[in-house]
Amino acid sequence: MKENKIVFIGAGNLATNLAEAFHDRHIKIAQIYSRTEDSAKTLAKAVEADYTTELESVINDADIYIVALKDDALVELMPQIIAGKENALMAHTSGSLPLNIWPDSVKRKGVFYPLQTFSKQRKVDFQNIPTFIESNNSADNQLLKELASSVTNNVSELSSEKRRQIHLAAVFACNFTNHMYALAEKLLQQYGMPFSYMLPLIEETERKAQVLSPKEAQTGPAVRYDEKIINKHLELLSNEPEMQEIYKLISKSIHKL
Amino acid sequence: MKENKIVFIGAGNLATNLAEAFHDRHIKIAQIYSRTEDSAKTLAKAVEADYTTELESVINDADIYIVALKDDALVELMPQIIAGKENALMAHTSGSLPLNIWPDSVKRKGVFYPLQTFSKQRKVDFQNIPTFIESNNSADNQLLKELASSVTNNVSELSSEKRRQIHLAAVFACNFTNHMYALAEKLLQQYGMPFSYMLPLIEETERKAQVLSPKEAQTGPAVRYDEKIINKHLELLSNEPEMQEIYKLISKSIHKL
Repeated sequence: MKENKIVFIGAGNLATNLAEAFHDRHIKIAQIYSRTEDSAKTLAKAVEADYTTELESVINDADIYIVALKDDALVELMPQIIAGKENALMAHTSGSLPLNIWPDSVKRKGVFYPLQTFSKQRKVDFQNIPTFIESNNSADNQLLKELASSVTNNVSELSSEKRRQIHLAAVFACNFTNHMYALAEKLLQQYGMPFSYMLPLIEETERKAQVLSPKEAQTGPAVRYDEKIINKHLELLSNEPEMQEIYKLISKSIHKL
Repeated sequence: MKENKIVFIGAGNLATNLAEAFHDRHIKIAQIYSRTEDSAKTLAKAVEADYTTELESVINDADIYIVALKDDALVELMPQIIAGKENALMAHTSGSLPLNIWPDSVKRKGVFYPLQTFSKQRKVDFQNIPTFIESNNSADNQLLKELASSVTNNVSELSSEKRRQIHLAAVFACNFTNHMYALAEKLLQQYGMPFSYMLPLIEETERKAQVLSPKEAQTGPAVRYDEKIINKHLELLSNEPEMQEIYKLISKSIHKL
């Protein structure tokens, strides 16, 4: 792959993990933009890039701009982001925004979507992260594929519609799953017991999903529809009407599936 | 620990994993009962024990009976299980049944509850599994603690009330979590995409919970209450009213927490 001048717009969780993965593979990053100086500076330092906190100071002669902002910020800042960058490939990293969020003045539209939950504090191994790319021309498809392939073995082209669907599934598999952990944590706090009691259990639950269909792997009172246990649990939740509602709805859904 | 004669009543997922863990630590098991001959035979062979498919043929001179049956079966079969075993320690393995499910005629009542999701196909490493014991006398508390300590480093005494609370939390952390995986799997099937796309994501979600409070670790549209994405997702779920309901309720709950 010829050396491309790459700029990151954004220095959040995803940008940090992706930029560091590029840097680890000796892919140079020219500049980092973030409106938060701390974030811009920290990431720029980590990947040996320049940084700016002003969109007007983002260089105009880069080949690829990776725009890793929250959806709202991307839409709001669009005019300033694209100004003067007519010849570059603009790629956003959102699971839910379509390719065509880029206006027509952007000739080379792209998406670079790594499907993972990122935190700045945890460096993830990019190697197996499914990364979905999209663009409006085959040369940039190729370019994005090569760029993604430099950090992961799991690259696919995917349409905006399919990307939105996969993002929805990911909300269930990640955010909602994490909320089940959070509710267990909340209950144990109320009961004066440590969340650490749950850790081997949630680890095994996750490991099972790596090898068995989750539908087939289900255990517990709901799948047997053990009404005695279910009713006792609902009773225990009587001072938590919202959790009671969640318990009922999910138990019904488990039993139905 | 003096050598105790141990009998397993039940040869299901929990019994299989626990009996095999004992066997691995050179703790002898005298006999396995299961009404299903295949299960009885398979487990008996694995742990070098005798087996029977008739409760009346369970030996009466064992020191400890570990009764690992489904709650309903335990209650239903209680008279036959305890008949002629007046001097033995009877320990059930249920998260939800109290110690006093053992009738008064049972002098040495016990509970041996390993908090984990077990499958016959997957041998789990017992070493870190939190195991909660309870009994009605201090000698048997000691006996159960020693027995548990032979397979895990994580043994605690716990009352029936607290055990029921922890079981409720476990339903959220394991069964409901697994159902979130199952719903993601269902969506991806509908969309013609493989569930394997989710695997690095669910692994990282679980790993985060091992080191961060799940409440603090939450990401995604619900925690920001990004209405645009939430509404798009609800639209995508318009032919799945039940999943739509679950999506709404959990998103609200995430935002509130």
